[in-house]
Amino acid sequence: AIMATIAAHFGPKRLSGKTAIVTAGPTHEAIDPVRFLGNRSSGKQGFAIAAALAEQGASVTLVAGPVALATPEGVRRIDVTSARDMAVAVAAALPADIAVMVAAVADWHVEAAGQKLKKSAAGPPVLTLIENPDILALTGHAPNRPRLVIGFAAETGDLLANAKVKLAKKGADWMIANNVSEGVFGTDANHVYFVTAAGTEDWGAGSKADIAERLATRIANAL
Amino acid sequence: AIMATIAAHFGPKRLSGKTAIVTAGPTHEAIDPVRFLGNRSSGKQGFAIAAALAEQGASVTLVAGPVALATPEGVRRIDVTSARDMAVAVAAALPADIAVMVAAVADWHVEAAGQKLKKSAAGPPVLTLIENPDILALTGHAPNRPRLVIGFAAETGDLLANAKVKLAKKGADWMIANNVSEGVFGTDANHVYFVTAAGTEDWGAGSKADIAERLATRIANAL
Repeated sequence: AIMATIAAHFGPKRLSGKTAIVTAGPTHEAIDPVRFLGNRSSGKQGFAIAAALAEQGASVTLVAGPVALATPEGVRRIDVTSARDMAVAVAAALPADIAVMVAAVADWHVEAAGQKLKKSAAGPPVLTLIENPDILALTGHAPNRPRLVIGFAAETGDLLANAKVKLAKKGADWMIANNVSEGVFGTDANHVYFVTAAGTEDWGAGSKADIAERLATRIANAL
Repeated sequence: AIMATIAAHFGPKRLSGKTAIVTAGPTHEAIDPVRFLGNRSSGKQGFAIAAALAEQGASVTLVAGPVALATPEGVRRIDVTSARDMAVAVAAALPADIAVMVAAVADWHVEAAGQKLKKSAAGPPVLTLIENPDILALTGHAPNRPRLVIGFAAETGDLLANAKVKLAKKGADWMIANNVSEGVFGTDANHVYFVTAAGTEDWGAGSKADIAERLATRIANAL
């Protein structure tokens, strides 16, 4: 990893002139002015990938959900809250050469109340969920689709089978699959699989920065 | 505010020998291993109150939901995730002379799934909500009730009316009411009303640290 970092700093900028969109973090779907539906993504893996691509000379737009992370050097950051906001920001950032969709986008939003929900004798309120736009699938099937569309699949079971299904359905070139029952949320480590139509590679356990550098190198090789 | 800070540092420790429980932050109620129901509390007001009470010499137990804040000096911190965890931690911290319940405790938890919920042809899942323990009411009505039980009421409408209802129903001595439609979440400023059976005082707009110091002084005057 140290050699890769040195190489990235002093070596040729292999992604100069290329544009990339990276999404990161969770989305928050408002239930009322106070409450939301969220998820445990910290944004660290996506921010590391945005940093690694920028390090290689790519012009990176990072569309970030609500996270407490500093913007990587040289990266243009757009902050969003909901999946619908994120879909709009990603569409506005097209065209691009590369899209890496790392954000844990909520599958559903809630029919939100304008006023804070109150406890009532009638019992707990009913939350009506509505499907969100699928940002990875929209990007993978867009008329101005990036040359390389990469998705992340966070799964708690049937990891590789689910990742392969998503690869095809979402029009992605590559999927990075990780098992989120292993407690990766908020930590600096991850264990991922690199899934393409050609097969699956176990990238083993590594820091989120290591995985980001490996992916950036792979992207540079492919473009 | 500067004079108050100096006085707190160099003046007599007016709460020496007293014990306090402070709750702060949101709670997260798991929907599945990845998703949760949350709220926009940053924990800043509760942490400021814990710091102000410790500054006055109180022995403070801070029961904190998931927040990204440093523990104030001299404060014993217990981290929790859900409202049910927080209720257990508060009960375990009793008896105490003072309880200041600042946390934005979720009113409901969700019948949580052991596996990550998936999109399905059957449409969005139904989230069944279940009422959480009311930590303020349990504390206000506990057999070993603190001498001073103080609650926070975050409201988007009928601020003072709602706060007065809560004061009586929850067995609290004082309520601090704030209008959360004014965008206080995550910021350092707040505008609160101090509500007791005797009446209501508008404390005006101030920093969360100022409000914490004013409340600590009020507590010291009352004990």
